[in-house]
Amino acid sequence: MKLSVQEYIKKIPYYPKAAMYGSEDGWVRLSSNENPYPPSPEAISRMMDELFCVNRYPGNESELKDAISKHYGKEPENVLIGNGSNEIIELSLKAMKHGTKNKVVISEPSFAFYEIASKIYGYETVKAPLVKMKVDLGVVRDCIDDHTRVVFLNNPNNPTGTIFNGEKFTDFLKNLPTDVLVVVDEAYGEFVESRAFPDSFSCINDYPVIILRTFSKAYGLAGLRIGYGVGEKSVISFLDRTKQPFSVNVMAISAAKAALMDQKYLKKVLNNNRKGKKFLYKALKALSVEFIPTEANYILVKIGSTAESVTKRLYEEKILVRWMGSYNLDEYIRVGIGTMDENIVFVEVLKRIL
Amino acid sequence: MKLSVQEYIKKIPYYPKAAMYGSEDGWVRLSSNENPYPPSPEAISRMMDELFCVNRYPGNESELKDAISKHYGKEPENVLIGNGSNEIIELSLKAMKHGTKNKVVISEPSFAFYEIASKIYGYETVKAPLVKMKVDLGVVRDCIDDHTRVVFLNNPNNPTGTIFNGEKFTDFLKNLPTDVLVVVDEAYGEFVESRAFPDSFSCINDYPVIILRTFSKAYGLAGLRIGYGVGEKSVISFLDRTKQPFSVNVMAISAAKAALMDQKYLKKVLNNNRKGKKFLYKALKALSVEFIPTEANYILVKIGSTAESVTKRLYEEKILVRWMGSYNLDEYIRVGIGTMDENIVFVEVLKRIL
Repeated sequence: MKLSVQEYIKKIPYYPKAAMYGSEDGWVRLSSNENPYPPSPEAISRMMDELFCVNRYPGNESELKDAISKHYGKEPENVLIGNGSNEIIELSLKAMKHGTKNKVVISEPSFAFYEIASKIYGYETVKAPLVKMKVDLGVVRDCIDDHTRVVFLNNPNNPTGTIFNGEKFTDFLKNLPTDVLVVVDEAYGEFVESRAFPDSFSCINDYPVIILRTFSKAYGLAGLRIGYGVGEKSVISFLDRTKQPFSVNVMAISAAKAALMDQKYLKKVLNNNRKGKKFLYKALKALSVEFIPTEANYILVKIGSTAESVTKRLYEEKILVRWMGSYNLDEYIRVGIGTMDENIVFVEVLKRIL
Repeated sequence: MKLSVQEYIKKIPYYPKAAMYGSEDGWVRLSSNENPYPPSPEAISRMMDELFCVNRYPGNESELKDAISKHYGKEPENVLIGNGSNEIIELSLKAMKHGTKNKVVISEPSFAFYEIASKIYGYETVKAPLVKMKVDLGVVRDCIDDHTRVVFLNNPNNPTGTIFNGEKFTDFLKNLPTDVLVVVDEAYGEFVESRAFPDSFSCINDYPVIILRTFSKAYGLAGLRIGYGVGEKSVISFLDRTKQPFSVNVMAISAAKAALMDQKYLKKVLNNNRKGKKFLYKALKALSVEFIPTEANYILVKIGSTAESVTKRLYEEKILVRWMGSYNLDEYIRVGIGTMDENIVFVEVLKRIL
């Protein structure tokens, strides 16, 4: 076919297919930062109620907006629901592009989709390198110029698991041009233990920020595709206008609401993650393997020059972890914190391989 | 907030909220062209299998691509899965935009989302008016110029329910500039009874067309959000590159595959639709109410100057139909074909109102 498509589309890399395994049994999946547990029983129960009604278009989004806004002490107009927080990343790029030259600022390394999406929408991407494996908001600020439309901040940052603190975040916002949208992606926010983590939700009415959260991680609904953004009402309204009428499915909406209401179950999940983290820290230290302390549900582990081959050896033993070559961190693997059984298997096999 | 957003975004109309009713009991829903029946029991059963695995990202899209390609005698690389066929409409616009001036050609009236999406992506929309309530491919051809990137053809056309035939479609394709993508949206294709309906799938390797089908209508999965596109491999690959890695949820994928395999159930649904159509034709004739004969699961009914107030009266009786004012068809309502019980209630109440 002779169709002319946008030039940059021909250069878009496909998403690493390694992330797209099926659901056959026997695999230990520590490669996609998923929750190793099924969601709250309340969420499963609500999905069962919907099974026979899926012939109708989703009509329940406003109930979820109500629940989320109450959870944060905001109003429903401050909330936008997305088909995964990925959709809201795209909506931000779609809405903010204007004029002839458009730039986004992204920390490097960070979640790969920011760059992929920015290129799809024709933005020039400016990279702010991490400093000591942490997002440095001073470096990010220095990358912003008159053409910057969107800044993506991932807190905790994927794949490092590190955070920037509240004080630095407020300073950063104060010194920002008014015409830049700051997308703070807190996909792993629920897992954070540090008290220095910013209370970003308190900033939405004073600064052009949108906070992204997801039900894919701590709430265990990755397969259903649902996330949300919280921001000042006019910001939310702009993004909402560029959104499809029914982008989020009815199962996701019902399950998400039930999962959000079951904070007791969430606490169990977070507690298990904490235990798994401690176990892995101890085991890695015993093996004299370096790692970056994490505030999320994954650990960036420094294997050294054999990181890629170790990933392959783990794969042969049906253990999936992510080699960080595509993040320019050749010596590292990213390991999700699994169930305690999975963590034990991982450590035993790693010990054997090293 | 002082954020600069694209100018056209401020002018985007919100989708009519009338389409977004909840699922309370007692309503007769004939306003959104939904299937009045739940999906195949096989689909429901497969969804139940997935309930406890939703913590994992979807990994089953390739299975569905295999099933769809086999169904049409194509290859998996000819198939693109979307978060509703709406997502593929957006992907087409995203991929095809290039140069300084971009136009789309849309029949009028037709499915409202083509125009909304085109405006979001900054296209100029050129309208090809229907002739005698039918898409006229000659008129559409005359609207195409050097700046045309995408043509949307809805067959059967929503809201008229009319079709263009195979011969005219082939002529149209033969006389097309090579650089225009033709999106043939056959969302209601399964319902068509006329033998003149184009075999559009046979054209994909000779012309730049992509055929859209959905699981929202005949297969009864509107709430799950899943549709697909079939086209030549390079066309599909371009669109696929602009797509998010996990835009379609695991429930939708599993249910869609099972629904597609259960053609026996589909036949029952189509048979019920045929019966409902005949019943409504007869009843409307008895009431001396004009309508457009349909190839879909809805009927465009000419009420006259009271169409809007009749819609309101029906609403008061908990019957939802769509007044066509927003389609510039002030004298019409669009009525979905429901279950036989629903059709009977609709006719009885309409009789009382008129």
